Amino acid sequence: MQASRKRTIDGREIKAVVFDAYGTLYDVQSVEGAVEAAFPGRGSLITAIWRMKQLEYSWLVTLMERYEDFWSITLRSLEYTLRSLDLSAGGQLLEDVAASYLDLKPYDDVLECLGRLAPRQRVILSNGSPAMLSTLAAKSGLDTALDHILSVDEKRAFKPAPAAYMRVEEELGVSRGQVAFISSNGFDICGAKSFGFTVIRVARTIADNPRVPLTGTGLDERFFFSLMRGKAETLDNAADITVHSLAEIPDLLTSRKADG
Amino acid sequence: MQASRKRTIDGREIKAVVFDAYGTLYDVQSVEGAVEAAFPGRGSLITAIWRMKQLEYSWLVTLMERYEDFWSITLRSLEYTLRSLDLSAGGQLLEDVAASYLDLKPYDDVLECLGRLAPRQRVILSNGSPAMLSTLAAKSGLDTALDHILSVDEKRAFKPAPAAYMRVEEELGVSRGQVAFISSNGFDICGAKSFGFTVIRVARTIADNPRVPLTGTGLDERFFFSLMRGKAETLDNAADITVHSLAEIPDLLTSRKADG
Repeated sequence: MQASRKRTIDGREIKAVVFDAYGTLYDVQSVEGAVEAAFPGRGSLITAIWRMKQLEYSWLVTLMERYEDFWSITLRSLEYTLRSLDLSAGGQLLEDVAASYLDLKPYDDVLECLGRLAPRQRVILSNGSPAMLSTLAAKSGLDTALDHILSVDEKRAFKPAPAAYMRVEEELGVSRGQVAFISSNGFDICGAKSFGFTVIRVARTIADNPRVPLTGTGLDERFFFSLMRGKAETLDNAADITVHSLAEIPDLLTSRKADG
Repeated sequence: MQASRKRTIDGREIKAVVFDAYGTLYDVQSVEGAVEAAFPGRGSLITAIWRMKQLEYSWLVTLMERYEDFWSITLRSLEYTLRSLDLSAGGQLLEDVAASYLDLKPYDDVLECLGRLAPRQRVILSNGSPAMLSTLAAKSGLDTALDHILSVDEKRAFKPAPAAYMRVEEELGVSRGQVAFISSNGFDICGAKSFGFTVIRVARTIADNPRVPLTGTGLDERFFFSLMRGKAETLDNAADITVHSLAEIPDLLTSRKADG
């Protein structure tokens, strides 16, 4: 894990704390149990490919100006993944497995963080469709710890398109300079920073003890996933500051000038 | 390999045959030798991650409205890949390795196909920057077999954004209904079809004897790459027809009504 250049955040300016959902508040790897139950021996591999294709499809439909909501994207990317592995699933099994995205496990650091952020506005801005997000928040109990749950759906554009981030200004009546945005997803960090938010990256450890094998010795799919999705991007618009747990965030914002 | 529904192509309507470059005319896996020479034991893994990140970054900068040309994207994605593997490379080594994208190997079926397509216009439409493409075409000798080499660069948008495909109409003076577009890249196939071209998918075999391992038995990176990039996408706007070699294309277009 390389050190990022940490800058200061002036918490006095921040009126809303906006979180990405998938991968930031909720562990997308937690679908693996349901996937493994449906496709024994393939849970980990399907989980990894599915998530990467889910993101890819969200980008592609936005670029093609062929928006479909995130539930459709989630189904299509699962269908792709199964087909690529020569597995088949009828419509009902596909829906049943995809429903695991409605019941994700929140990370352990979420509730403490949200509790200590009040009375600032605590918000989700997610690619998820409104129905996916309301089900997810209710099942996980985070609904009571959040002030707003915003979906990009109304803009018919997924992150990191600027239109997606505009939802925050439009719904909350705050300017982008008054928003602290928290994400573990590299593309989301760049997009939010490019849009003008103050951005905090949470460096989630995706892989457990990933191996870095030499060619030919075999490669763990979690390691492959972590290579693709685990690091800060080498694009412009890096995060202002990196934390390793959401529990660090309330102190960052409450101190007048917090040096990370 | 699953059968795709084949439809007819009326070759009489087709005035320009437009090819994707990277992965369609040119084998992007052919950078592996140069990568392996620079990073022994890591050639195959770096090649796979680099290509996937290169595409991802092309989509992200377009979505963020932060366009950079494909040479910059190629450098940044290589830098990401090396960093993710805890490898480092100074600016010169980075440029030297990235230069392998200027010297890609054409697939074996390219020259025959291009030769037999004349007098129809034979065209490249590529994400590559104008400088990358002119170098590539000259080094590989394809420049003499092509009538036009078009880059998306002028539109400051990468495929599959509609703006990228507009280059063909603008430069060639043909309508989209008069264009046959050929690509092996799933996102490019969807984008071109969504734009209105007649689309031929060439099903390139990415992996040599890919293994489908059970979890825990290890995963070959070429297989992982082929899972992510080797299949037709499960989005709308599928190809009109699928071929397994470019050598099949001239006959498809010369017959008045060719059933695939």
